[in-house]
Amino acid sequence: MPPRESYDWLRAHAVETAYIGSALALLHWDQSTKMPAAGHAHRAAQVASLTGLLHARRTDPRVGEALAKARAELLRDDPHSELAANVREWQRAYDRAVRIPADLAVATARAAALGETAWQRARPGSDWRSFLPYLEEIVRLRREEAEAVGYAGEPYDALLDEYEPGETAAGLEPVLAGLRRELVPLLDRILGAPRRPDRTLLSRHVPLEAQRALCREAAAAIGFDFEAGRLDSTAHPFSTRIGPGDVRITTRYNEHAFDEALFGAIHEAGHALYSQGIPGAHFGTPCGVSVSLGVHESQSRLWENMVARSRGFWRHFLPRAAGHVAALEGVALDDLVLAVNAVRPSLIRTEADEVTYNLHVLLRFGLELALLRGQLQPRDLPGAWDEAMRSLLGLTPPELADGVMQDVHWAAGLVGYFPTYTLGNLYAAQLFEAAGRELGGGAQGLDERFAAGEFASLLEWLRAKVHVHGSRYAPRELMRRATGAELDHGAFMRYLTAKYEALYGL
Amino acid sequence: MPPRESYDWLRAHAVETAYIGSALALLHWDQSTKMPAAGHAHRAAQVASLTGLLHARRTDPRVGEALAKARAELLRDDPHSELAANVREWQRAYDRAVRIPADLAVATARAAALGETAWQRARPGSDWRSFLPYLEEIVRLRREEAEAVGYAGEPYDALLDEYEPGETAAGLEPVLAGLRRELVPLLDRILGAPRRPDRTLLSRHVPLEAQRALCREAAAAIGFDFEAGRLDSTAHPFSTRIGPGDVRITTRYNEHAFDEALFGAIHEAGHALYSQGIPGAHFGTPCGVSVSLGVHESQSRLWENMVARSRGFWRHFLPRAAGHVAALEGVALDDLVLAVNAVRPSLIRTEADEVTYNLHVLLRFGLELALLRGQLQPRDLPGAWDEAMRSLLGLTPPELADGVMQDVHWAAGLVGYFPTYTLGNLYAAQLFEAAGRELGGGAQGLDERFAAGEFASLLEWLRAKVHVHGSRYAPRELMRRATGAELDHGAFMRYLTAKYEALYGL
Repeated sequence: MPPRESYDWLRAHAVETAYIGSALALLHWDQSTKMPAAGHAHRAAQVASLTGLLHARRTDPRVGEALAKARAELLRDDPHSELAANVREWQRAYDRAVRIPADLAVATARAAALGETAWQRARPGSDWRSFLPYLEEIVRLRREEAEAVGYAGEPYDALLDEYEPGETAAGLEPVLAGLRRELVPLLDRILGAPRRPDRTLLSRHVPLEAQRALCREAAAAIGFDFEAGRLDSTAHPFSTRIGPGDVRITTRYNEHAFDEALFGAIHEAGHALYSQGIPGAHFGTPCGVSVSLGVHESQSRLWENMVARSRGFWRHFLPRAAGHVAALEGVALDDLVLAVNAVRPSLIRTEADEVTYNLHVLLRFGLELALLRGQLQPRDLPGAWDEAMRSLLGLTPPELADGVMQDVHWAAGLVGYFPTYTLGNLYAAQLFEAAGRELGGGAQGLDERFAAGEFASLLEWLRAKVHVHGSRYAPRELMRRATGAELDHGAFMRYLTAKYEALYGL
Repeated sequence: MPPRESYDWLRAHAVETAYIGSALALLHWDQSTKMPAAGHAHRAAQVASLTGLLHARRTDPRVGEALAKARAELLRDDPHSELAANVREWQRAYDRAVRIPADLAVATARAAALGETAWQRARPGSDWRSFLPYLEEIVRLRREEAEAVGYAGEPYDALLDEYEPGETAAGLEPVLAGLRRELVPLLDRILGAPRRPDRTLLSRHVPLEAQRALCREAAAAIGFDFEAGRLDSTAHPFSTRIGPGDVRITTRYNEHAFDEALFGAIHEAGHALYSQGIPGAHFGTPCGVSVSLGVHESQSRLWENMVARSRGFWRHFLPRAAGHVAALEGVALDDLVLAVNAVRPSLIRTEADEVTYNLHVLLRFGLELALLRGQLQPRDLPGAWDEAMRSLLGLTPPELADGVMQDVHWAAGLVGYFPTYTLGNLYAAQLFEAAGRELGGGAQGLDERFAAGEFASLLEWLRAKVHVHGSRYAPRELMRRATGAELDHGAFMRYLTAKYEALYGL
């Protein structure tokens, strides 16, 4: 086949594969939201079967042959043309897929499934001894995968690259070290402030029906299109793109913590705005999918924290929220804004505020690096965890369930994934700063827009700078083009400092 | 490969194919119940892509080769052993699939899609001229398919066989002629009876929430397992088996016709009881799927009409229904039972009662046969329809929308399918009679069980006689084993006559 025909074959193959992937996304959504209980065994076997089918299609030798033909011709082009970008990303995915031996892939999937179940069983009783063998197996297999995939710098890079293409430990370490140096003193200043948030506002009873209305109104306000999406309820909130015109979010409801449902919904709506902004015409090709977990998280955190925890947002939204939520009637704006931004060191990452959140991620990144470098053995994790927790947050977990056993990620095979959370925060701040500059008025200008209920110009800016590109540019290149700057913790620290000085009267 | 290995390969291939089919079932369910409006274009393309993938797997030449090897050995066995039955059905499906040329399959799918859209557009205005070319194309393609598939008797058989394996026009004609001979006089007797049902009971206002509770309670009462299924709302009620442990039904709600939602739900629950009763261990193989549309319809009609329109059912259910539905308080049992069984000739099949329903089907069967035999041209259908309607039901449609254009089936390519509705009624009556005999007390004995809220013994009998077998036996053989009798209209006429003589005091 000539190069163009090879390209067309690759595209058709990729789109057909993506339709299977889209069916898997719906199977997952359905499993979490609608599936009857007795359907679990069938669904698990079905997902395994279709995942195997996907893997076979992705490692089909014809893909490698077509890539070899298409590549020669098309990579001479502008490296960021649609065709060149698709070929580059197909090649990246194909190389990774074929380098991992089938038996390793199967063993890893199996270890992850067993590990997750073992974690669920062991965590409530902090039963480290029963869990450790599963974790050891996972770490062993992930290290084996890193060797199979290959790396220029160190093994960690081979894993991180799956979630954040092109990113490396060496690239992250100085940025994260700088972040840590500035975060800890800011946290100390906040904890020394005389002003104290009243978080009891947030534990007032709010009926679930009112919370659902609140979440829908907030998601719609920031631009989530309910004609092209849904909001449902799940144990663990998530966002999923079934395909163009069909992006779904979920949240979790607690009658005595309406803020969890609300910010959960807005966080997922932030992911969904990205997904709804990717051009449908590119469905099934790299130009039609999100580029990385870090960039995805930048969108969810930007809308959750920089928009929906801002004073401007609540100037607009509090009167509307009080229409749904009787418990919010008469609450003062400043009290509410302080409550939803309360800072307090805590043991659990998923409950952490904006200031301490990244310290939790730094802790995990340090331990993952040490594990992959062979400097730390899984059996020594509990001690290393507690030591890092004391050093970063000044806390000691009373139970392993509140410490090294709190997250499912490692148990489920996700090693090399945590830094994307902090990358998301840093990218979000860089984007927010650039948007403020370009839309006019900086952070203050954006806040005024939010107070007027005007979120569309920020969304349009993100659409044009980020969403529309899919995976055309690698994450760092995409961010460079969007913000005019290299990855850096400066914007995030400027954002946090200004926000918390005002909130806590520092 | 030796025969047993060929069999194992076929089984694995079939199960993997069935997982894709199960994903398609979920895509269809989701599209009808949950999908956001903007997802339609993506979903249509996705369904087309996955359907193409299924077709390619079903016509894979390796299937033919493996069948040739497995067949020689296994068909020597008991022809109804699991292995022999699976090989027989795989062969049947493979032969049919490969005999239909790919371009004919594509043209038929396209004509059906276009035909359905044309029908939707043309029906409201009874615009026969704009619809006719689409119908002509469908009839032409279906006749071409019959020739491609082949037949022993006549072309109609090749189409009917897709829906009702082994059934033929010659096998049906005497049974349906006998049915017609007896139905018309019974209808005349009923219409001459002085007793008149009061159907206004059924148009009393019932809030949708109460109707939902009513439908759930009725479906659960007859044995639908909500741990292994769901009930949702759609424009057109259906039942779908996603897989073992996951069978879903839908119904349609109208505030002024609670009987539509209720009997719709019970009809679909009848289908679902069959689906829930098929052993999950056989998933993906012929022994793990329903055998025919006629047998499926026998289950839905049995539970809808013979159970849920019986006096015994309402002796049990009316007090419970009145708990959900204020409009039913104080309604007399006999008035309600007569209302839900009211007989009146009508133009629209889907609104027809038990007595006239089969006359509608006979009308369509006669026209389909004439079309396939070339004795009738599509352009002459309106006249032929009206003439048959006068002769069978004594009515003349004022508009084609109430006549030849009322059903979507032909427009959507479904020619040769209608008789399965009447087969369902006849099989239902034969099963019901046999169950009454074997469980004791005949129809009266069953009625007493229903009055006591006892539906489980009938369900267990159907499980053992029908559900558990999947497609192990061809439909006629399955029914012979279950009822001890050949297909016949006698049981149905005995059932109708006894029921309506009592109801109308004949």
